[in-house]
Amino acid sequence: MTPTITAFERSPDGGMGLARDTRVRWALEEAGQAYEVRPVSFSAMKEPAHLALHPFGQIPTYEEGDLVLFESGAIIFHIASRHAGLLPDEADARARAIMWMFAALNTVEPPILELITAKFAEGDKPWSQERLPLIAERIRHRLGQLAARLGDAQWLDGAFSAGDLVMVSVLLRLRPSGILQEFPRLAAYVARGEARPAYRRAFAAQRAFNTARPPAG
Amino acid sequence: MTPTITAFERSPDGGMGLARDTRVRWALEEAGQAYEVRPVSFSAMKEPAHLALHPFGQIPTYEEGDLVLFESGAIIFHIASRHAGLLPDEADARARAIMWMFAALNTVEPPILELITAKFAEGDKPWSQERLPLIAERIRHRLGQLAARLGDAQWLDGAFSAGDLVMVSVLLRLRPSGILQEFPRLAAYVARGEARPAYRRAFAAQRAFNTARPPAG
Repeated sequence: MTPTITAFERSPDGGMGLARDTRVRWALEEAGQAYEVRPVSFSAMKEPAHLALHPFGQIPTYEEGDLVLFESGAIIFHIASRHAGLLPDEADARARAIMWMFAALNTVEPPILELITAKFAEGDKPWSQERLPLIAERIRHRLGQLAARLGDAQWLDGAFSAGDLVMVSVLLRLRPSGILQEFPRLAAYVARGEARPAYRRAFAAQRAFNTARPPAG
Repeated sequence: MTPTITAFERSPDGGMGLARDTRVRWALEEAGQAYEVRPVSFSAMKEPAHLALHPFGQIPTYEEGDLVLFESGAIIFHIASRHAGLLPDEADARARAIMWMFAALNTVEPPILELITAKFAEGDKPWSQERLPLIAERIRHRLGQLAARLGDAQWLDGAFSAGDLVMVSVLLRLRPSGILQEFPRLAAYVARGEARPAYRRAFAAQRAFNTARPPAG
């Protein structure tokens, strides 16, 4: 059964691949799984029909028969646990790959989200310019620790896994800030992720999706 | 094999149960799994021996034979996937319980972490008092959506699961702010979590751990 995911009718990033549907597209491509995409407008995201799928009124969602999931980490985990290629078979290695998914989403991404909130939701506040460097320092602290752990390895724990997929996706959100490039090991790690054929297909698909149709409104 | 977790030598909250080892203790208690606890001082958390276990220099960690995990969400998932009582057997229900774990950690917790950062890391900044209400509004927005989804149900999706365990643990961090109490359904939901015998054992254990020994330094 072909699953259906939702995506922004038109992503605020105009197709740079930073919206969270790209992560899910990437996982589906790694898994060799076909999928459909249903666009959702910003107004429709707040309406009951979408809130029934996603209580927080966001994208992506994932529908497959009777199963409805939201939250990109959970969707990626679902795909990874049902198809080969994203989680190791060996139990301990599998637990560690899942660990990196959680670490990406709960330890590395929160200060990155803070930076995005500071720029977009509080960008007009008088403290904005003074706060941004503080947030950037918190991000650098995390990235320094992550780079130390990665060392000269290609991926976080052995072969490429869903943990890398999520971590690379989280780090990609930093590229506009310039902070990622301060950490050459992490920049190279992200570039390895982007070079994967599955990522390239996912990126191209979201880009086509976001640029093919006329902008809403 | 009895696993060993790490916890703050003395939690900054003095045993209110808000440090992340409490979540893991709770999961272990729900699973009926004995465990050992090794205290880690703030200085030891930054040293190579601990960083080898936890690259971000935090607690808790989880050691079980050759397996070393960090990140409380990942540890709870590991426990839940190996013992009965925290994840449903039916595949779709299981995927949804895992979804709520991710939602708690990546959608509900980030604005709560922002509030904590604003109070503790930026509490001395001139913008602090003006910013706190903005963050509180972002939290209220999420809690309103969560309360709407919960409705009159006891738990987020059928029987109590690891999703509820993580969500209740995340919401508990809000109690000092008074915001949780503005949402009676969620306050009652959290109280149901706290009333579980496994939570009570976990809470008592961390409290005893944090109050039994003389404070460091």
